[in-house]
Amino acid sequence: MDIRKQVGLNVQRIRRTRGWSQEELAFESGLHRTYISGIERGARNPTITVLKELADALGVPPSMLLEPAA
Amino acid sequence: MDIRKQVGLNVQRIRRTRGWSQEELAFESGLHRTYISGIERGARNPTITVLKELADALGVPPSMLLEPAA
Repeated sequence: MDIRKQVGLNVQRIRRTRGWSQEELAFESGLHRTYISGIERGARNPTITVLKELADALGVPPSMLLEPAA
Repeated sequence: MDIRKQVGLNVQRIRRTRGWSQEELAFESGLHRTYISGIERGARNPTITVLKELADALGVPPSMLLEPAA
């Protein structure tokens, strides 16, 4: 699976596990909601520092966002 | 540790484990040697697709490049 799609699915899954909306993840991560929406759709190609900001906001290690879905 | 430094250390360590020079990794990954040198120094902020190209060339899962050094 394309790494961008993989990251998108992971971000969306973990966000939903937290019971957060995209707005809440945007607020927690300091990123814009539309950018998060793009990441979750696999339409964005974030850098590793953005990945770290998302991971920190979600409370998971950055490597987890790259893992293939279990 | 800064995620860029972490990725740099991981790429360098795994590359050396393979016994490869930066030129060889550049050839295998399709990236420029100077870009790889920048990544290994923690001076670059690669996107997840570049991370995937590096991981594929090194024969490791992309998530491993984000792991804290053991």
